[in-house]
Amino acid sequence: MEPIKPYKAKFDYSYTLGAFPTYELLNTRPENVRCVFADPGYTDMNKLEKLCGKAGVKLFKDEKTIRRLSDKENVYVIGVFNKYDTVLDNTKSHIMLVNPGNMGNTGTIIRTAAAFGITDLAIITPGTDHFNPKTVRSSMGSVFHMNIECFEDFADYEKRFITGSGRIPYAFMLTAEKQLTVSDCPKPELYTLIFGNEATGLPEDYKEKAEPIFIPQSDMVDSLNITIAAGIGMYMFNSERI
Amino acid sequence: MEPIKPYKAKFDYSYTLGAFPTYELLNTRPENVRCVFADPGYTDMNKLEKLCGKAGVKLFKDEKTIRRLSDKENVYVIGVFNKYDTVLDNTKSHIMLVNPGNMGNTGTIIRTAAAFGITDLAIITPGTDHFNPKTVRSSMGSVFHMNIECFEDFADYEKRFITGSGRIPYAFMLTAEKQLTVSDCPKPELYTLIFGNEATGLPEDYKEKAEPIFIPQSDMVDSLNITIAAGIGMYMFNSERI
Repeated sequence: MEPIKPYKAKFDYSYTLGAFPTYELLNTRPENVRCVFADPGYTDMNKLEKLCGKAGVKLFKDEKTIRRLSDKENVYVIGVFNKYDTVLDNTKSHIMLVNPGNMGNTGTIIRTAAAFGITDLAIITPGTDHFNPKTVRSSMGSVFHMNIECFEDFADYEKRFITGSGRIPYAFMLTAEKQLTVSDCPKPELYTLIFGNEATGLPEDYKEKAEPIFIPQSDMVDSLNITIAAGIGMYMFNSERI
Repeated sequence: MEPIKPYKAKFDYSYTLGAFPTYELLNTRPENVRCVFADPGYTDMNKLEKLCGKAGVKLFKDEKTIRRLSDKENVYVIGVFNKYDTVLDNTKSHIMLVNPGNMGNTGTIIRTAAAFGITDLAIITPGTDHFNPKTVRSSMGSVFHMNIECFEDFADYEKRFITGSGRIPYAFMLTAEKQLTVSDCPKPELYTLIFGNEATGLPEDYKEKAEPIFIPQSDMVDSLNITIAAGIGMYMFNSERI
């Protein structure tokens, strides 16, 4: 096996940083795991050995590789996996991120989506790489539960998932007139919740592509953080259907 | 004036990193501002000069101080302020953080609180320093709109704000039985929403101190990120009263 190098987007593999996301990987996508590295000082080695054995995955006790791949002190386990493609499920509701710019935010949104039972994410590119170790880490490994597809533009997504489907897309925009309120939240059968870039939000023309909607907020702030807005949107639309 | 040094918790001053939180500081707490530093290359100098003039605050064009205080390239403006004490308003609903451990999270929770019109925050110590420049930055300056008090333990807070007040405290805990749902959210007149530490949550005895409540979530995740849980809680309880 070639030595594992610090991640680049063009690689056909990536890795988990930390025990928790590595367990998620081994439990959810065992067929995609190349191998696992553990610091010999890892305190829960028995559990890890068992799980690797069950998944038929090689476990290397190799502190050097761990220190080379991680810039954090508290990483004791790394799981290397082959990247894989997934396809969105057209019978399920989706979340869409348009040009997401921050890997930590994308990971947090994935973690929240999984918490509320939304397992399909569309990304309009350019945007963050969902297999970057930073995204995988901030998703706490829930990225392995998700179907994720990238689209070059909204029209590509629209053709496959909206046109003629009965799906209702909602665009979260500060300039929308309709408010998302606790007493009057829409309850469509099938929907897509759309969120824009951290700094620039959604382009104005999303008002024509989708139903614009707005989370009411005071004038003490410029806007909500994107992960909070997405969390509230997903909770409101899906938490009673988990 | 003594030279401004990189922040330490024991200092009687702190500073904003970036133009946006500095404007918030100048608009909200002008009487607390010591001075403002701007990179001579800052593009909106006229606006900043005007605002400093109006607030009676000295503006220094001094790139060196900015580079010394900030490790980020994109900081062009820094506002130095004297720390100040505030007192919680016993006629208003509050948020409480018990031993918060991450400054970025505390700042994000403050930003979300301000967005939903909650302007009183109790911190049970030990916990993050709300005037640390990292917290101020992630709050986007909304920390200057807040009343914030630190308490050594819950009993100190309880005596002043709960006993005999009609206020209902809610403890967000993964082990609570009562679910927070869109169709059945409590609507108390006066309340305190309590959130625990990022890694350890709330101690079990908060079940006796407050009404335990739980945001329903799938078993695909271990828990929600604390900032997301707090955001959903504050939105549910307060967004229709902004």
